[in-house]
Amino acid sequence: MNISYRLADIVLQLGGRVLGNADVCISQIATLEKAQSSHISFLTNSKYRAQLATTQAGAVILGEADADATDLPRIISGNPYAYFARVSALLNPLPEAKPGVHRSAVVGAGAKIDATASIAAMAVIGDGTTIGAFSVIGEGCCIGANTAIGSHARLYPRVVIYHDCVIGDNLIAHSGAVIGSDGFGIAMDEGRWIKIPQIGRVVIGNDVEIGANTTIDRGALNDTVIEDGVKLDNQIQVAHNVRIGAHTAIAGCAGIAGSAVIGRYCLIGGGARILGHLELADHVEVAAHTLVGKSIREPGSYAAIFPFSKTGEWRKNTVHLRHLDELVRRVKALEQEIALLKGKDQ
Amino acid sequence: MNISYRLADIVLQLGGRVLGNADVCISQIATLEKAQSSHISFLTNSKYRAQLATTQAGAVILGEADADATDLPRIISGNPYAYFARVSALLNPLPEAKPGVHRSAVVGAGAKIDATASIAAMAVIGDGTTIGAFSVIGEGCCIGANTAIGSHARLYPRVVIYHDCVIGDNLIAHSGAVIGSDGFGIAMDEGRWIKIPQIGRVVIGNDVEIGANTTIDRGALNDTVIEDGVKLDNQIQVAHNVRIGAHTAIAGCAGIAGSAVIGRYCLIGGGARILGHLELADHVEVAAHTLVGKSIREPGSYAAIFPFSKTGEWRKNTVHLRHLDELVRRVKALEQEIALLKGKDQ
Amino acid sequence: MNISYRLADIVLQLGGRVLGNADVCISQIATLEKAQSSHISFLTNSKYRAQLATTQAGAVILGEADADATDLPRIISGNPYAYFARVSALLNPLPEAKPGVHRSAVVGAGAKIDATASIAAMAVIGDGTTIGAFSVIGEGCCIGANTAIGSHARLYPRVVIYHDCVIGDNLIAHSGAVIGSDGFGIAMDEGRWIKIPQIGRVVIGNDVEIGANTTIDRGALNDTVIEDGVKLDNQIQVAHNVRIGAHTAIAGCAGIAGSAVIGRYCLIGGGARILGHLELADHVEVAAHTLVGKSIREPGSYAAIFPFSKTGEWRKNTVHLRHLDELVRRVKALEQEIALLKGKDQ
Repeated sequence: MNISYRLADIVLQLGGRVLGNADVCISQIATLEKAQSSHISFLTNSKYRAQLATTQAGAVILGEADADATDLPRIISGNPYAYFARVSALLNPLPEAKPGVHRSAVVGAGAKIDATASIAAMAVIGDGTTIGAFSVIGEGCCIGANTAIGSHARLYPRVVIYHDCVIGDNLIAHSGAVIGSDGFGIAMDEGRWIKIPQIGRVVIGNDVEIGANTTIDRGALNDTVIEDGVKLDNQIQVAHNVRIGAHTAIAGCAGIAGSAVIGRYCLIGGGARILGHLELADHVEVAAHTLVGKSIREPGSYAAIFPFSKTGEWRKNTVHLRHLDELVRRVKALEQEIALLKGKDQ
Repeated sequence: MNISYRLADIVLQLGGRVLGNADVCISQIATLEKAQSSHISFLTNSKYRAQLATTQAGAVILGEADADATDLPRIISGNPYAYFARVSALLNPLPEAKPGVHRSAVVGAGAKIDATASIAAMAVIGDGTTIGAFSVIGEGCCIGANTAIGSHARLYPRVVIYHDCVIGDNLIAHSGAVIGSDGFGIAMDEGRWIKIPQIGRVVIGNDVEIGANTTIDRGALNDTVIEDGVKLDNQIQVAHNVRIGAHTAIAGCAGIAGSAVIGRYCLIGGGARILGHLELADHVEVAAHTLVGKSIREPGSYAAIFPFSKTGEWRKNTVHLRHLDELVRRVKALEQEIALLKGKDQ
Repeated sequence: MNISYRLADIVLQLGGRVLGNADVCISQIATLEKAQSSHISFLTNSKYRAQLATTQAGAVILGEADADATDLPRIISGNPYAYFARVSALLNPLPEAKPGVHRSAVVGAGAKIDATASIAAMAVIGDGTTIGAFSVIGEGCCIGANTAIGSHARLYPRVVIYHDCVIGDNLIAHSGAVIGSDGFGIAMDEGRWIKIPQIGRVVIGNDVEIGANTTIDRGALNDTVIEDGVKLDNQIQVAHNVRIGAHTAIAGCAGIAGSAVIGRYCLIGGGARILGHLELADHVEVAAHTLVGKSIREPGSYAAIFPFSKTGEWRKNTVHLRHLDELVRRVKALEQEIALLKGKDQ
């Protein structure tokens, strides 16, 4: 690829303003430390400010407050991190996929595949399934019967979507993601588990990204719902009947148990666990590796992390946790003794 | 689909008794809140009892204690939750798979595939492998050489089972599940890890369900064993040489380390971790996100969850955990001082 | 298979020395408990020493200290565990894969596949991708464009490697592993997440093993790097820009967040979480289920596990954690009262 842009061209497309030579041509984006003269870099974290003086970058993206922090050709933006993302997308367009169905793919009866869509080698499209305009179904993907996928989807190799799911536009799904598998529904009957059929669907809005090997189960009776703009990292488990509110982002390895309802604009840390049948308000942040065991009605930041230490110290301190109630009672007893002694004393 | 049943027909097949009009026809199952007149609903949690008065359901399933809680046509059962599961299965049979081998599938030399079995597009069946009657091997599944799968298995797309595994009847395995991968066996030798060949198998009983992207490693020398009726949710890791007792159910994202032995009828919560080389008795329940670091010999419920709170409060409280041993010593010192003071006082 | 070796032949190949009859022929390796007369067994854990007296094994592998612990024919080695691994590898060679490209596989334009390499059924090799000598690409694997895989790789079925990755020799990758998926890079802009293109690569050294359903994301701008000899168990998540030092071993379900740098010869326990942008020195051990939230500069063993107990006791003790700061203040107040009382007393 040999894409390159003048700074003047970039601000024409993305807004912001240029300070310094607007004719500088850049062809890639890089960190301040690694950038070369054909690269544009960016400062979004003041911790790296010193690198502005030494960077070899041909240009930089800066926030308003840093507009004069360098003499390098620069683009000034109100949100330099988002601007960096947009410039990178401009310089790194996704490779185009050839429209049409690969000769090795298998397409079911009554499937409707838009003429602009691309179905890669070894993919299997179920009966009655719809694939929207400019969508790309990667190698070895399996889409079940009667599922609808909107336009501009990008499914990387070996994504599975089960039958009867409904997916909006601009889905990105990474390899190994599984959407629409059965929820974990079982009923005990005389010493044996009976399977509860999972007859709900997975319904996904627009602009959703789903990481590698993430799983989203279909609903038991009602649907599992992922609203617009939700971003899921790798290896996340979303159980049946969960609803994740719009623009919520969840980091890798998190698990959301059945029927939990997560608000909008939440941030859930890596490996966090949200138990079933509870609700998180909008704008709730949950720290990594934290279990949330009851509903959170108030926006804010929540945590439950055991602090790590050298194993010897950890053991020495931790042994007391099994006797914490006793310790509290001992303190209470001491308080009573003191009160008594003070009483006598007076 | 247009399946529908009179209540009278249902009790003929599944037992229980009808109160009210036994000729009511129902075609689907739904929650009390969402049910329409062609639906049957159910009450299995007294929390939803008020909805009995307002539901639009055509009929409901109730326990004996609730037999008179409504005038709606109703089926009375000793275990309404299991009954609900059975009615749902009646109304929602799995789509039938066409027997035979899809033209794109690859079948190894000496493989024995029952004439009633179905091998879907892009599946690969290894040399000498056996697929039992009415089993369905989904799109893109890979079954290694000399593995035996019993009857009535249902493998969703892209399940992998390695060579030489033995699997009973009625297996359900969801997409992305991997059965029989190498256990994590390495030996350090002069600064380098040497791989220990994993020559055991995975042996799975009857009536087992395995969730999406769950992994079960083969044994190092002996076998990894999953007994009858075990139910595994998504993204569970079962390490080499583990044995999981019959009818144990494990929720998503749990991990069972090497050579652990889990009893029968255990319930393991989501994200729980069972360390290696230990034993859990039958009927042990482990809470979500709990690490079990030594054997549990006694049935019962066990937990180890750090309580979450607002991040500020969490930080304020948690900082003391690194000094808990010191705190305990301070309390002990206070107790001695008090004893001394009281001694003087008397 | 009918491989068998005399003890004399084994020490000729692997070193060590024989005590007792060196002509004993063995054909498989087994535990002391299960071994038969055609098997060799081993003692690497003194806990099993009593089994030496009752084992049916034809021969055993022992450390120097145990050389006289039995009269059985035996091989004496300085590192009997590593020796056991080597003997097992000798007796259990991997099945050979037929060189060449299966008729159903799809190979992209300009791909260079060594004549000794094997590409299995349903595999897809991208344009310009290189597969080294004696490498085996399993069924249904997808290798993206312009990726290079060294010699003697063994990819089990359904591994995905994205475009532009660089992988050394002797890679073992288990089914469902995904290498090179996009890192989780998003920027908030006026209420919507914008995707940050992930233009780095995954670079993997020699002698690396990657477990089933493990995911390794490509770098955002720079690369994600896995150095020589790293061993990753199943279902591990490695985020973008992580570097894992040589010969580090990580157990199942662990998660390494973005830009973390792990040293050499580290051991990370199952389900552990390493937060982003921090560093672990060489030779750091992290216990299972432990979250590491800041850099560890000193080698040693670290832990943060909440001790489990019966749920009733856990609840009784744990309730106090939300008031630990108050408890510490109460103890401090008591100390002051005591000091006061003692002052008065004197």
